[in-house]
Amino acid sequence: MSKSLVGIHAEGKIYTDKLLDTSAAAARAISLYGKENVTNGSSGVMCDENSTLICLPTVETTFRNIGIRELVGYAPIAGMQDYQDAAIRHTFADYQPEGYIKAIATPGGAGAVSSVIWNYSDPGDAVLTHDWLWAPYKSMCSETGRKLQTFSLFNENKGFNIASFEAEVREILKQQDRIVIILNTPGNNPTGYTLTNEEWDAVIEVVKENAKADNKSITLLLDIAYIDFTNDPLKSRAFMKKFKNLPDNIFITLAFSMSKSFTVYGQRTGAIIGLSSSKEVIEEFTHVTQMTARTRWSNVNRGCMQIMSTICNDPLMVESLQKERDDSMGMISKRADIFMNEASKFELDVLPYCGGFFITIPTVKPDIACEYLQKNNIFLVPLAKGIRIAICSIPTIQVKGLAGQVVEALKNTSEK
Amino acid sequence: MSKSLVGIHAEGKIYTDKLLDTSAAAARAISLYGKENVTNGSSGVMCDENSTLICLPTVETTFRNIGIRELVGYAPIAGMQDYQDAAIRHTFADYQPEGYIKAIATPGGAGAVSSVIWNYSDPGDAVLTHDWLWAPYKSMCSETGRKLQTFSLFNENKGFNIASFEAEVREILKQQDRIVIILNTPGNNPTGYTLTNEEWDAVIEVVKENAKADNKSITLLLDIAYIDFTNDPLKSRAFMKKFKNLPDNIFITLAFSMSKSFTVYGQRTGAIIGLSSSKEVIEEFTHVTQMTARTRWSNVNRGCMQIMSTICNDPLMVESLQKERDDSMGMISKRADIFMNEASKFELDVLPYCGGFFITIPTVKPDIACEYLQKNNIFLVPLAKGIRIAICSIPTIQVKGLAGQVVEALKNTSEK
Repeated sequence: MSKSLVGIHAEGKIYTDKLLDTSAAAARAISLYGKENVTNGSSGVMCDENSTLICLPTVETTFRNIGIRELVGYAPIAGMQDYQDAAIRHTFADYQPEGYIKAIATPGGAGAVSSVIWNYSDPGDAVLTHDWLWAPYKSMCSETGRKLQTFSLFNENKGFNIASFEAEVREILKQQDRIVIILNTPGNNPTGYTLTNEEWDAVIEVVKENAKADNKSITLLLDIAYIDFTNDPLKSRAFMKKFKNLPDNIFITLAFSMSKSFTVYGQRTGAIIGLSSSKEVIEEFTHVTQMTARTRWSNVNRGCMQIMSTICNDPLMVESLQKERDDSMGMISKRADIFMNEASKFELDVLPYCGGFFITIPTVKPDIACEYLQKNNIFLVPLAKGIRIAICSIPTIQVKGLAGQVVEALKNTSEK
Repeated sequence: MSKSLVGIHAEGKIYTDKLLDTSAAAARAISLYGKENVTNGSSGVMCDENSTLICLPTVETTFRNIGIRELVGYAPIAGMQDYQDAAIRHTFADYQPEGYIKAIATPGGAGAVSSVIWNYSDPGDAVLTHDWLWAPYKSMCSETGRKLQTFSLFNENKGFNIASFEAEVREILKQQDRIVIILNTPGNNPTGYTLTNEEWDAVIEVVKENAKADNKSITLLLDIAYIDFTNDPLKSRAFMKKFKNLPDNIFITLAFSMSKSFTVYGQRTGAIIGLSSSKEVIEEFTHVTQMTARTRWSNVNRGCMQIMSTICNDPLMVESLQKERDDSMGMISKRADIFMNEASKFELDVLPYCGGFFITIPTVKPDIACEYLQKNNIFLVPLAKGIRIAICSIPTIQVKGLAGQVVEALKNTSEK
């Protein structure tokens, strides 16, 4: 083989992606057998009962009405002011805590998460998240020489495992002065779990306790991609009010994404929002985050940002979009209920689903089980310790009986 | 002040941007005094004779006809196959050399350039480009701990300075085994210079000579953002044919951007194209580049990629778009001719303009001269050693007399 030409840091990087590989396999099966014969639970996008990708009507109409020059013109690096304001209002709604707040546009939630990891940690640092996780967090860390460490998301009662969280935060802060902690809630990807307000109190207590030493700092990075797909999207923001009056060595960052909330996935538009009691912390955030933006992707899709600011500046459009979102969530909830009921009849172990796009079945043999299911034209994503079902994208008719098929797959692979 | 919360590598990062600051100042002046009273030569976008941003009609029509699900759906990390193929065909046209070729979608040309710097160099490495440069190259390097070094673009005859190029390449390869060399041509930003075919022969000779040692490797990174805006866009690709049969420790990468060629600047869509005589080099490129994409921005604007593949798969649309581009270039050429003629009457020193969006006046006091011009509502971008004029965006009526105003500004600031 030829000599490797990449930098030492990039040697041996192999790009594989079980999420996208499964989607690609599902697409091939659909083209061979027809969509009605293929259960595609691989991808985090909402599909209607005909397996057709949903774009919420208010968003589609707005998109079609954006002027061409707004679509193709350059945006400022941080996004237009109107967009920044809309992203902040949408994110916090009635629960905006006091403090300095700034939003910087990013290509989707992925750009937001990646930017915080990059700026708020150093090569060699540990970054912490829960063991049930969106796999790209790990790649984002390894790509830049960070190590992703995990705590157990669930305790024995399937509530948030505060003891495990506390132990890991404490341990890591013995080794390093800064820590980035990623929490994906509400509607956690992949489990659908949502931290309760009491669990949030405990999390903040742990964070405060571990940031007592002046030389330590904690950056909390909240991936809230699924916040608008819970049973009560407004109340699911209530925890945000708890972030007021934190000491200035605790920094709150929120990865906002239009992808799910506005069903514009491939348009790649989101924002990283910083919240701090310190003006200087927010100024530093504004500088470092814009520099990362300018040097990685330059600026963000102006047309898509314009969709959001147009809608958010019109109360009637906000209302109609909210209704469309609620209807979609109603459809997802119905599917989830069917699955959970059937699972319970089979006594199938399912992680606690509270909302969002996914349901997860824990298993020690996810790859073999998913392969088995693929032979029956059922496409689910194997995780490290489970199987992820994108309940958002599977028509109700195909959800019926799915739990049984998973049970059968687990049974048939348990001896292997 | 609060303690800095960012990683050590990010401490003290200050985001400033003279390009975008000047655009913002121009926008404020326009809102105060009206566009007919403000000469806005700050931004690299084509404007018509009414100072209105141009979106080429074939692109606009195609954009409006893309189905909503194509607009909002997720794309594969590398982009759809059709898009990759179109990007390669468009880039090389009649001059595709033999070799292995792969395109990976990126958010514009910026994403492409940044990705190659990241993957093909290490922290501490020198990256080489010409001294007349697009400023973000420098930030892209400093953001990731690389040092941007420069050679003199021009010799005393205002031709390509091959001696300076050769000396820097040789010097850097004494210190390190790998080098990334960025060349922005044809229609260099900021000067408008285009390397001749003979100059290209000399460049390739230097690259080959310096890659003779087995342990050395050279990655040539061509920023071709302005390739479609020369007097003969097809022939301006002829140099690409020279990249055949290079040894496998010389890697050719091309930053393709839809921004200018398809006038979809803010849609953030481009690709990085790798070309090598070695299959393994291209496989490595495919892996490392996709991993960088997945971990920085995940995927690229699907709708915009669809615009390109739709147009490029239809010969009639290709033809109509080419005619629209040629008409636009005709307008830019006319403006450039007026400026160059007036400049020559004033004996104003102008760097050699061959095409592209910009003309540059060398001066030792760019900031003071640009400030002076701003007082007369003329907005041009100060570079390290000159003033950049975005001739692409200034209506002909405002181009007339502009050279004289620059002369006056230089005269009035020369004593300061």
